[in-house]
Amino acid sequence: MPFKKITDQDIQYFRHLLGADKVLTDAEQISRCASDHTEDFEYKPELVIQPTSPEDVSRVMRYCYEHNICVTPRGAGTGLSGGALAIFGGISLDMRKMNKIVNLDTENFQITVEPSMITEELQNAVKEKGLFYPPDPASKGSCFIGGNIAENSGGPKAVKYGVVKDYVLNLEVVLPNGDIMWTGANVLKNATGYNLTQLVVGSEGTLCVVTKIVLRLIPAVKNDLLLLVPFRKASEACKAVNAICLAGITPSALEFMERDALECAIKYYQSSVVSLADDIQAHLLIELDGNYMEQLLKEAEEIDTIVQQFDIGAILIAESAEQKLSLWKLRRIVGEAVKGNSIYKEEDTVVPRAYLPQLLDSVKSIGKKYGFHSVCYGHAGDGNLHVNIVKGSMSDDDWNNKLPLGIRELFTEVVKLGGTLSGEHGIGLVQKGYMDIAFSQQQLQLMKSIKTIFDPKGILNPGKIFID
Amino acid sequence: MPFKKITDQDIQYFRHLLGADKVLTDAEQISRCASDHTEDFEYKPELVIQPTSPEDVSRVMRYCYEHNICVTPRGAGTGLSGGALAIFGGISLDMRKMNKIVNLDTENFQITVEPSMITEELQNAVKEKGLFYPPDPASKGSCFIGGNIAENSGGPKAVKYGVVKDYVLNLEVVLPNGDIMWTGANVLKNATGYNLTQLVVGSEGTLCVVTKIVLRLIPAVKNDLLLLVPFRKASEACKAVNAICLAGITPSALEFMERDALECAIKYYQSSVVSLADDIQAHLLIELDGNYMEQLLKEAEEIDTIVQQFDIGAILIAESAEQKLSLWKLRRIVGEAVKGNSIYKEEDTVVPRAYLPQLLDSVKSIGKKYGFHSVCYGHAGDGNLHVNIVKGSMSDDDWNNKLPLGIRELFTEVVKLGGTLSGEHGIGLVQKGYMDIAFSQQQLQLMKSIKTIFDPKGILNPGKIFID
Repeated sequence: MPFKKITDQDIQYFRHLLGADKVLTDAEQISRCASDHTEDFEYKPELVIQPTSPEDVSRVMRYCYEHNICVTPRGAGTGLSGGALAIFGGISLDMRKMNKIVNLDTENFQITVEPSMITEELQNAVKEKGLFYPPDPASKGSCFIGGNIAENSGGPKAVKYGVVKDYVLNLEVVLPNGDIMWTGANVLKNATGYNLTQLVVGSEGTLCVVTKIVLRLIPAVKNDLLLLVPFRKASEACKAVNAICLAGITPSALEFMERDALECAIKYYQSSVVSLADDIQAHLLIELDGNYMEQLLKEAEEIDTIVQQFDIGAILIAESAEQKLSLWKLRRIVGEAVKGNSIYKEEDTVVPRAYLPQLLDSVKSIGKKYGFHSVCYGHAGDGNLHVNIVKGSMSDDDWNNKLPLGIRELFTEVVKLGGTLSGEHGIGLVQKGYMDIAFSQQQLQLMKSIKTIFDPKGILNPGKIFID
Repeated sequence: MPFKKITDQDIQYFRHLLGADKVLTDAEQISRCASDHTEDFEYKPELVIQPTSPEDVSRVMRYCYEHNICVTPRGAGTGLSGGALAIFGGISLDMRKMNKIVNLDTENFQITVEPSMITEELQNAVKEKGLFYPPDPASKGSCFIGGNIAENSGGPKAVKYGVVKDYVLNLEVVLPNGDIMWTGANVLKNATGYNLTQLVVGSEGTLCVVTKIVLRLIPAVKNDLLLLVPFRKASEACKAVNAICLAGITPSALEFMERDALECAIKYYQSSVVSLADDIQAHLLIELDGNYMEQLLKEAEEIDTIVQQFDIGAILIAESAEQKLSLWKLRRIVGEAVKGNSIYKEEDTVVPRAYLPQLLDSVKSIGKKYGFHSVCYGHAGDGNLHVNIVKGSMSDDDWNNKLPLGIRELFTEVVKLGGTLSGEHGIGLVQKGYMDIAFSQQQLQLMKSIKTIFDPKGILNPGKIFID
């Protein structure tokens, strides 16, 4: 910083270098790449480049490195922390054309893909071969696997199957200076040098551009059961989460939704799959999966016994694939549905699971203190609670000046509980101002030094994760 | 380098700083800390220090950083790549007194321990509470959890449950300059800044000294079955490994042992649990675990059907806990038993699982070419094959000058198969000369730069992982 502004000469050079069809300057493309799914931010890049190979990416980076032009990698733009926003202009490196399967190795349970394959399409492709790639962010139908790598995404199945980092074996990356390299090897165990792969996963496109991804896969699971349990008290729903885990059951999803969250989703889809009684404050959506249906039924019975100890309504057990799909559609749309109603901010708090009741309590009391309403939902089995703060009737002044103090208080509480700022959305642009709550200056300095090793000129996705 | 030699004045200072009982100069302690389980190496440290707190470690590091004294952290000394060897002298930072459980959080399925708790004791402590910490290196009865973190250890259960890195949530570390910090948070999902935790796991004590470890735990598993399948052809045993995985079964252990390996182990223990027919070339030891015995029996039947397609002897199904223990004792002692017979070198090759037959083939043909005999065994389900090269009647000249070329050829083949140098033992001292086979100069330079950020003076565990 400051970065060189892009000139006509630069554009001519890129067209010559890559072919004119990969270098876009029209208002429509610039505008499309100006925002992602984070609040209502808009930052126009000066230029959009759509590479089709690692070599393309390398050529672009090499030129930008030489000329001090900043580059912001972009996947599907479904990110919730502003990672794909080109806040200093420069190039939006729009990876969408690199979206193919390079190799589906059914013998070794591995897939090698380009970064812009849609996550659900990847899941479907491996499912056809009897294999399973579990991480399933809510946006799985539109997000790209490369973006999932950048943010170390989670999703409902993380409670049993882990998050993206647990499936990444190896990455082909392009460094800011244009060098192409792999981070590891295609093996399940690796004690050979530092774990560069895990350093890149979750680095939000600030260290390098990922151009190929090797994922491990597991055998497909044959059966599942889905239960929706309504609770008259939200705090009891949180307590039930831990009671289920303490019984030794590991559901394949253990999701919490406050009443408002489910209500918004029902309205959004005009859905009739759930009838929402007046006295219900929250729901748990619980999925069990495994190869043996008898086992799942036994576990469902155990769960029934556990949740009956709380003040609950009638449990809904999904009876068909369609009903399961409808329930999951509701859960997956919650975020979008809640946000449709108002200006909002979304926090992605995560704490040790047993402290969820305390976390929910803090959210509500801090909300009362600072005058904001929140809608909470998320991956309760992981202690990962999404807190949607809706502006509603809050004044602009309160929203801009008072609310950040409330969020700061919330994150301080989260860290006190042993938790941290983000479970799966990343820090990006919107949370970087809170990093000092989770980390000392010394920890931040160590991370910044790592950034400098990869990106000495700071041209790759500047202004993200760290202040400055 | 070169490092300052330790003087009487330094020793006096350490005694004053820490208390005399933590600062050891007697020949017995120096000699004990001069070797680990790697070949027959011996490197005497100048001084042994036994800290009892992170603050002790911090004080030692701060002084050594100021005075350019090198420090080699040491756990139980069971390492197989020479990570604990003080090859430049200096201080052996003997962590054995930091061996307590700090907190066993049964509500959140987490344990916080000091680094020198014996892995099996940790496993037993959590088992008492109905919880399970799966990674179980062969040396679990004597190795320390801190050493497991340093080497990213695996063990038989990795095929189903993953390796050490998959259980580490957070680490308290002391940096070479003496600063104490945590690497992450005590949460199951984390998208907050770079993953320093995973950078430290497997860094072999070269980046920082680990002083506290937070591990996630899972619910204990109620049942298991253990089968020993004898194969008339070793290559078919390797093929059967993949056939089992392709059937969608994930055993909790899937171990391969060449005839020689099992024979050594049987002799070592004078065991009669296995009768080894003359025509058997190799065995698979297969464990299934889960909460429902019916499920395990079904899977065992499926495995029976699969292995019957190969040329096998009579399958042994362990009928009692004692018999299971005896079989596992044999498997666990293989390494030690093989090494008892001769001077040896142990390689820790790892490839994508389906390529095990090719790997075994390469080991044997390279052995023929270079005139060495090898005994192979290991975690076949992960593609992790330990290759014990025994000196036997090989001349010293061939051993010292010809063998390294053979090992180089083997690793070149491993990397061609998509594999790498070490699955779970680390690089340490003995494999660093082969790093150029797995990594480009650029990759190595990136890793070395990371080392420099943590340890600008290079005083922590010098001479490991990298040449120079």
